[in-house]
Amino acid sequence: MTTVGILGGGQLARMLALSGAPLGLRLLVMDTADDACAGQFAPLLVGDYRDEAALAEFAGKVDVATFDFENVPAESARWLADRIPVFPNPGALALTQDRLAEKTLFRELGIPVPDFADVATRADLETAVAHIGTPCILKTRRLGYDGKGQFRIKSPADLDAAWTALGAQASSVGLILEGFVAFQRELSVVAVRGRDGEFRAWPLTENWHVDGVLSASLAPARVDTALQATAMAHAQAIAERLDYVGVFALELFCRDGELLANELAPRVHNSGHWTIEGAETSQFQNHLRAVLGLPLGDTSVRGMACMLNWIGTMPEAAPVLSVAGGHWHDYGKQSRDGRKVGHATLRADGAERLAVRLADVGEALGRQAQVAPVVARLRETPSSE
Amino acid sequence: MTTVGILGGGQLARMLALSGAPLGLRLLVMDTADDACAGQFAPLLVGDYRDEAALAEFAGKVDVATFDFENVPAESARWLADRIPVFPNPGALALTQDRLAEKTLFRELGIPVPDFADVATRADLETAVAHIGTPCILKTRRLGYDGKGQFRIKSPADLDAAWTALGAQASSVGLILEGFVAFQRELSVVAVRGRDGEFRAWPLTENWHVDGVLSASLAPARVDTALQATAMAHAQAIAERLDYVGVFALELFCRDGELLANELAPRVHNSGHWTIEGAETSQFQNHLRAVLGLPLGDTSVRGMACMLNWIGTMPEAAPVLSVAGGHWHDYGKQSRDGRKVGHATLRADGAERLAVRLADVGEALGRQAQVAPVVARLRETPSSE
Ligand SMILES: Nc1ncnc2c1ncn2[C@@H]1O[C@H](COP(=O)(O)OP(=O)(O)OP(=O)(O)O)[C@@H](O)[C@H]1O
Ligand SMILES: Nc1ncnc2c1ncn2[C@@H]1O[C@H](COP(=O)(O)OP(=O)(O)OP(=O)(O)O)[C@@H](O)[C@H]1O
Repeated sequence: MTTVGILGGGQLARMLALSGAPLGLRLLVMDTADDACAGQFAPLLVGDYRDEAALAEFAGKVDVATFDFENVPAESARWLADRIPVFPNPGALALTQDRLAEKTLFRELGIPVPDFADVATRADLETAVAHIGTPCILKTRRLGYDGKGQFRIKSPADLDAAWTALGAQASSVGLILEGFVAFQRELSVVAVRGRDGEFRAWPLTENWHVDGVLSASLAPARVDTALQATAMAHAQAIAERLDYVGVFALELFCRDGELLANELAPRVHNSGHWTIEGAETSQFQNHLRAVLGLPLGDTSVRGMACMLNWIGTMPEAAPVLSVAGGHWHDYGKQSRDGRKVGHATLRADGAERLAVRLADVGEALGRQAQVAPVVARLRETPSSE
Repeated sequence: MTTVGILGGGQLARMLALSGAPLGLRLLVMDTADDACAGQFAPLLVGDYRDEAALAEFAGKVDVATFDFENVPAESARWLADRIPVFPNPGALALTQDRLAEKTLFRELGIPVPDFADVATRADLETAVAHIGTPCILKTRRLGYDGKGQFRIKSPADLDAAWTALGAQASSVGLILEGFVAFQRELSVVAVRGRDGEFRAWPLTENWHVDGVLSASLAPARVDTALQATAMAHAQAIAERLDYVGVFALELFCRDGELLANELAPRVHNSGHWTIEGAETSQFQNHLRAVLGLPLGDTSVRGMACMLNWIGTMPEAAPVLSVAGGHWHDYGKQSRDGRKVGHATLRADGAERLAVRLADVGEALGRQAQVAPVVARLRETPSSE
């Protein structure tokens, strides 16, 4: 029996374990926290990713390794890859850990990106802002997630505040300045590439963020087929260049019909959670199939789906459980401010039916604001797009 | 966080764990074997169901208990029910453990059953065979499963052999003689009843057995709506009489358009495995929702599904994984003759498409005989039914 090792034991590892179990595999999850929520459904090895003894124990117990967490040190991934197969490969992981390297690659592949510039010093920041213009965003190159490590510069007057907030990190994780994209939509491609190079993608997903954190996703996104095809071509080009194996998400901004690549997440992704009930094969099962070299599953959808993220605390389950097509995902975590503790997926066979279910759930939970943009999108006439 | 205890740690407990995890619950599985396959994905307590110390430890650790195994001693279930909530209730469990009590109840409820008679002595057997006629089947009243504890009597000449095979058990588990039903189809209703009495059922499933063990299931069964309605009414009447909570399966024979009740399985059932991918809510998740008093999920289907059982050893996975709508379930068990080690579910949006996929998979696995009756059923013209 094959044992798959997962570095990181959060909700992504937990859903990988639940979805991978039917493949007959064994799992081992490694995390720094002894209460990592994947540990409720898979054996957990507690250890630091930089600790060679812990990594050696992990390597000795698994046949192949993958990630639920993209900020595993690239050196640790390389150390492992010298001993056991690791997917995605450490080079791909390292590249996606650096916003500058990532955007440089996108540009090389002919994929449009927001304007960006490397910022090493305060003087660089002045030059970059003068060149890119305001509004713009100063971000750490590495270790950012859920909108953390970002500062929005509305006018040149904000330069001092931006440097005070992030300047100290220029020498440690690096900084990048990005032009602010006045997008109409945020979209993501969740895709998978097999060990043999086979590429499959789920339909484009539209995403809504609140305070830099994903709040809702709608799939399939209501976009025309040309946009869909362009997004898929971008995702495939990147995956091939990186010799990527497994599931990844390419986050895109859509501004005036043009797609700009924001970033690549080298793992199963929050904007793909709807695939558990909304697609023939989930992102979780297909990630494991890819990592194990098994045939990839069908990524076609069943109707439409909307995923709602639960941040901080779980709302009451009953309103979701009692609606037809309502599915509940409690990650078994303690409540904590800003923490992703669960999600719900609502499925329906048509846009208006999904809109009604969403509006009902939003009302019952007092979360009208969370569902409103999705309901509005579902009720737009196609001609308004 | 609620902990659900499951008595029995086989594949049903394993699939309950995987399907219940998103509800945010914790599990504890109790089994006599320390390698019970549910233990790969849930904490396992090894102990004998008759051992009060073990039961007390189990009761102390869980908030509510249920079963993956219907032959847990009824006294153990009662002992537990004096201490914690147990669903289904021990009375329902006890009734379904006795083929005679079960058939008597069906008859009381006006549900047609095969002819049957209690057999305590060799003389009883003579009388019963004379009365019921041949062919008929002598079965143990208790502890039979997968066709074990049965002897087919083709003519009165088989009486001696039947008594030699099973007579010794007349005083321990009891015996029942049943008329042999020359059925055209075997069907099952998989249904769920909530703590508040809400009743829902998945569409009728048609089943094929080989050597007394389930081989294939097709859902929805291709039957007319009147038959469907009768089957549902039977299931609901039984559930209400027993004040049943949770999922159960009612196995039926269909002979010349009439339904005869064979038996009731007081648990999630092999003929409901297709609901994992083929229905909006699986039998496993709905069982846990019922046991926890949560709203029941939608039982409507997505297209058509066929489940194929893997007995003894797992076949090669690739032919199933590479077909669209192909889903794989390896229970993580050691191979052993006659053991249920896994299953596959094939899903498709129409009958002919499902037939093609089944035929392809049967061919690729060299299991043409297993898929043939299902393919034939799918290709029957409705008028031939
Ligand atoms: N250049 C930009 N123009 C406009 N909005 C932006 C830009 N960069 C980021 N944002 C907004 O902030 C959100 C989070 O930004 P980004 O994806 O860079 O951060 P992250 O910390 O890596 O987030 P995640 O963990 O969600 O991937 C984006 O989804 C978008 O809503
Ligand atoms: N009275 C009958 N007439 C015709 N066939 C029968 C009869 N009883 C049993 N069978 C056949 O044997 C199979 C198994 O019988 P039954 O359901 O009584 O046994 P079991 O050991 O409880 O099986 P399971 O574990 O599958 O429920 C039935 O599905 C049917 O194919």
